[in-house]
Amino acid sequence: MNMKKILVTYPINKEALAELYENYEVYLPNEGGLKRDQVLEMIADYDVLIPNFGFYTDDEMMAKAPNLKLIANYGVGYNNIDVDAATKRGIAVTNTPKTTCEPTAELAFALLLAAGRRIGYYDRNLRIPRGVDWGIYADAGISIFGKTLGIIGMGRIGQAIARRGVASGMDIIYHNRNRLSADIEARYNAKYVSFEELLKTADYVSLNAPSTSETLKLIGEDELNLMKPTSVFINTARGNMVDEAALAKALKEEKIFAAGLDVYEKEPKIHPDLLELENVVLSPHAGTKTIEDRDKMANEMVQNIIGFFEGKYDVERVN
Amino acid sequence: MNMKKILVTYPINKEALAELYENYEVYLPNEGGLKRDQVLEMIADYDVLIPNFGFYTDDEMMAKAPNLKLIANYGVGYNNIDVDAATKRGIAVTNTPKTTCEPTAELAFALLLAAGRRIGYYDRNLRIPRGVDWGIYADAGISIFGKTLGIIGMGRIGQAIARRGVASGMDIIYHNRNRLSADIEARYNAKYVSFEELLKTADYVSLNAPSTSETLKLIGEDELNLMKPTSVFINTARGNMVDEAALAKALKEEKIFAAGLDVYEKEPKIHPDLLELENVVLSPHAGTKTIEDRDKMANEMVQNIIGFFEGKYDVERVN
Repeated sequence: MNMKKILVTYPINKEALAELYENYEVYLPNEGGLKRDQVLEMIADYDVLIPNFGFYTDDEMMAKAPNLKLIANYGVGYNNIDVDAATKRGIAVTNTPKTTCEPTAELAFALLLAAGRRIGYYDRNLRIPRGVDWGIYADAGISIFGKTLGIIGMGRIGQAIARRGVASGMDIIYHNRNRLSADIEARYNAKYVSFEELLKTADYVSLNAPSTSETLKLIGEDELNLMKPTSVFINTARGNMVDEAALAKALKEEKIFAAGLDVYEKEPKIHPDLLELENVVLSPHAGTKTIEDRDKMANEMVQNIIGFFEGKYDVERVN
Repeated sequence: MNMKKILVTYPINKEALAELYENYEVYLPNEGGLKRDQVLEMIADYDVLIPNFGFYTDDEMMAKAPNLKLIANYGVGYNNIDVDAATKRGIAVTNTPKTTCEPTAELAFALLLAAGRRIGYYDRNLRIPRGVDWGIYADAGISIFGKTLGIIGMGRIGQAIARRGVASGMDIIYHNRNRLSADIEARYNAKYVSFEELLKTADYVSLNAPSTSETLKLIGEDELNLMKPTSVFINTARGNMVDEAALAKALKEEKIFAAGLDVYEKEPKIHPDLLELENVVLSPHAGTKTIEDRDKMANEMVQNIIGFFEGKYDVERVN
């Protein structure tokens, strides 16, 4: 029997992929990710592609892959893949929503607390001569308890953030393509509101929508102008949903109080103005950036690959 | 009628004290706190002292205050006051536990998340040429979900932290002078353990005990040696409960993974080694450092003063 061939396009912990090596032929780069050109040259032979976040897996690439049956994404967001093209070519696409949910919600809440309570500002400035004013009101942050958390995109991750918000004494409002069931709303005492009302009334705005053609630059100058001057904006979803220059400008002009950002328009580049601002806290697309979670995510991806070829019903297909 | 006189030893928002001005004569400094010498000179006339955190309110000071009836602390921790001496002299001491609880728990949890998920490290290094490795496993943090949170001192603040821990998927263990009721334990599914077991088994250790002669340098080299190399230490209580040099050494030698610190042995000085370390996140005794919370705390203190002279039963006496 010919073993099916899997092309992994960047280094993932080999031990976390151990199960694959039993029944598949796995190509795993030792160091650094493969470039688009390299993948284009290699892909003809492969049955499975673990796509990269550094380039788009598009129709041109799929056209060079007559054997490709599955694109198994390592992550929950799949804006790195032309899913429509894959569907047309009969190629399955899977992602890893289970293991990405809690760590990403965790990171989002870490940024929310850090931005509101000025943890980044304090930590940076205590280490340099500028210092921080220890006085009672000077350099004060804003509180979280009793405030309103507005969640844009109330899927798994949004709800996991809401759970943390409730325990922190926050009121939850949300906007979503579809209103959630009364049952789920009751769990977080969450109120469904329009996109505009959310921006106008939330003290903390967390962006957790999927990146699609409709959510491109969802948050720009107009939306930032709707937000309160005391509000905090958190993005742990995708950078292309935010006009980064407009956000930097709003922060600079103190049109909003602060932001916590994990994702950027041109990763790994960050808008230079953001790097200079005191009222923003930055992390490097680290939603699942823990040893444990990266391995759990690899395992979820592995189970999708194995399950797909065994015809299991619970494979996490996105098409 | 002679109005009672209140000596406030550092600037507190005047509007938050408005109710006092109706029936009391209030001395409120405009800028900067009063020095100990100044308080010693002034105190003879006063009925109420709002003590400072910059110096100890000791028996010598009380001896100069024949009219003093109440020391109304602005804060929950009262290690800045010789309460025994006050008791002997028949002087009441009050604090502000209600309004300090949630903001301090909030700050503790912000530091916990920031230390585990390396928010301070990321934010600092993304802004300088050194940068952060965006690779999958490089510069990774450790997760919170599924981990064990050990709380030393399970009072109001400890429990408010536990509530946030539960919502974040943590298991709660605690050590306390007295074991809590089964009812409270059940609320957080919290397990009572010895001090030693807590240090040995917790992934995150949060110090929330009161500062007393018994808790002085509670955490030193021996205790840090008991902790896991993957553990995170959080202190939002008082700096004198931790041997700061030993903690800096343990962090430098990676005997623990990280720390989040809000309080220090010699505030506002921070041990110089801590200021150089990448695996610590620092804030400036900011447990209640938000505009809203500082005002709420002032109001709680004001109600203690008014209630004390009106003989109300619910004044927050600590002696």
